[in-house]
Amino acid sequence: MTQVVPKQGKTTIPGNTLIVPTPEHGRELALQLARHSVQHIQPDQEVLRGGRPHYATDPDSLIEAAQVVATEFATIAAANNYWR
Amino acid sequence: MTQVVPKQGKTTIPGNTLIVPTPEHGRELALQLARHSVQHIQPDQEVLRGGRPHYATDPDSLIEAAQVVATEFATIAAANNYWR
Amino acid sequence: MTQVVPKQGKTTIPGNTLIVPTPEHGRELALQLARHSVQHIQPDQEVLRGGRPHYATDPDSLIEAAQVVATEFATIAAANNYWR
Amino acid sequence: MTQVVPKQGKTTIPGNTLIVPTPEHGRELALQLARHSVQHIQPDQEVLRGGRPHYATDPDSLIEAAQVVATEFATIAAANNYWR
Amino acid sequence: MTQVVPKQGKTTIPGNTLIVPTPEHGRELALQLARHSVQHIQPDQEVLRGGRPHYATDPDSLIEAAQVVATEFATIAAANNYWR
Amino acid sequence: MTQVVPKQGKTTIPGNTLIVPTPEHGRELALQLARHSVQHIQPDQEVLRGGRPHYATDPDSLIEAAQVVATEFATIAAANNYWR
Repeated sequence: MTQVVPKQGKTTIPGNTLIVPTPEHGRELALQLARHSVQHIQPDQEVLRGGRPHYATDPDSLIEAAQVVATEFATIAAANNYWR
Repeated sequence: MTQVVPKQGKTTIPGNTLIVPTPEHGRELALQLARHSVQHIQPDQEVLRGGRPHYATDPDSLIEAAQVVATEFATIAAANNYWR
Repeated sequence: MTQVVPKQGKTTIPGNTLIVPTPEHGRELALQLARHSVQHIQPDQEVLRGGRPHYATDPDSLIEAAQVVATEFATIAAANNYWR
Repeated sequence: MTQVVPKQGKTTIPGNTLIVPTPEHGRELALQLARHSVQHIQPDQEVLRGGRPHYATDPDSLIEAAQVVATEFATIAAANNYWR
Repeated sequence: MTQVVPKQGKTTIPGNTLIVPTPEHGRELALQLARHSVQHIQPDQEVLRGGRPHYATDPDSLIEAAQVVATEFATIAAANNYWR
Repeated sequence: MTQVVPKQGKTTIPGNTLIVPTPEHGRELALQLARHSVQHIQPDQEVLRGGRPHYATDPDSLIEAAQVVATEFATIAAANNYWR
């Protein structure tokens, strides 16, 4: 039974943990996860940079990106028991 | 093992907590989180303001933004045990 | 440590509570939350009304709006322990 | 403290309950909730029927509608403790 | 108090249960649920087949369909306590 | 009562388990699940490869794909009790 294996040398999640001390740390991690997903699907930095000016200025793309951040943050917040 | 670190001086979440006294406070926080995500992805205020008239008047963009708010609110409501 | 503060005089959530007696009340609250999000992002009623004919007749916008209602309802239903 | 009140005479949820005997009943309820949301936002049946041929044949609209059904079903399934 | 009733003869969920033995079975069920939603909204097989070549080749439609599958799978996985 | 049966020979989930040792493994699995969904809906590799250059360079498609990854990761993270 083979298991999934992360690609060597790749660091998607700093410290390889979802546990972070405060909500602000959680927001920063959510932003990083969202960015990493885009990079995994499109690892060519040139192509990625070519597209960035578009999604970073188009309001619709920005809102869609904010939706990804909100979804990642929901997971991180649950992992940290909402820093209660 | 390095951990994620929020950028200095940035305040995304007032008081750095998801715990707020009432559902109305929770809605306000959800709106702020949604706005902050857009600002983190596009920190250039000029570009952001250039785009705003579009997403603030286009009904489709408004509905997508409302979806982000709904997702952030779900997290905040769970954090506060739904103010039961 | 400053906390988030809702704007004075605004009433997004009737009675400032997510606890409602029946699922029908929950659906009505979900619809109101969805509408309020749009109004918070675009408080200018004239612009909003100008756009309404579009999203209220375009089937794609209606379906996206239904998605927001579904997301808000999920939160309200959980808050009420699903009226079990 | 005023509470939210459903519009008189409207029946969104048959029997005003999310508790249904089987997953098949749950799917049917999810479909009805999705349809009702569209009708609440656009109560004019003529306009609604005018748009239907479009979203019912356009594959993208069908997939977006399927997303709403999936979200409503998630809530109903949780309400019924997944019919375990 | 009338309750929701599934249409006779329709079988959306094989065995009328969300409980399946392994994650692979869960993925297959998620795919079937996503497909059935599209068929319920557009039961005309001719129209459906007419549209399929589009959403099955257009990458955006494929990604949206993958989102529906992900959402259905989340429900199925929770129902099965994640096959822990 | 017939139950859902995965297609023979298909391996969507390595090891047929959602339980993985670390968050990095979880991200990798989320990416694989997202990719597999697209492949199940469009199993023709030629058509799929024909479309890839588009969604892999178009920023909007990349963000939508990131949303699928975020949703799959939420399920995997919950399955692993967030690697707490």
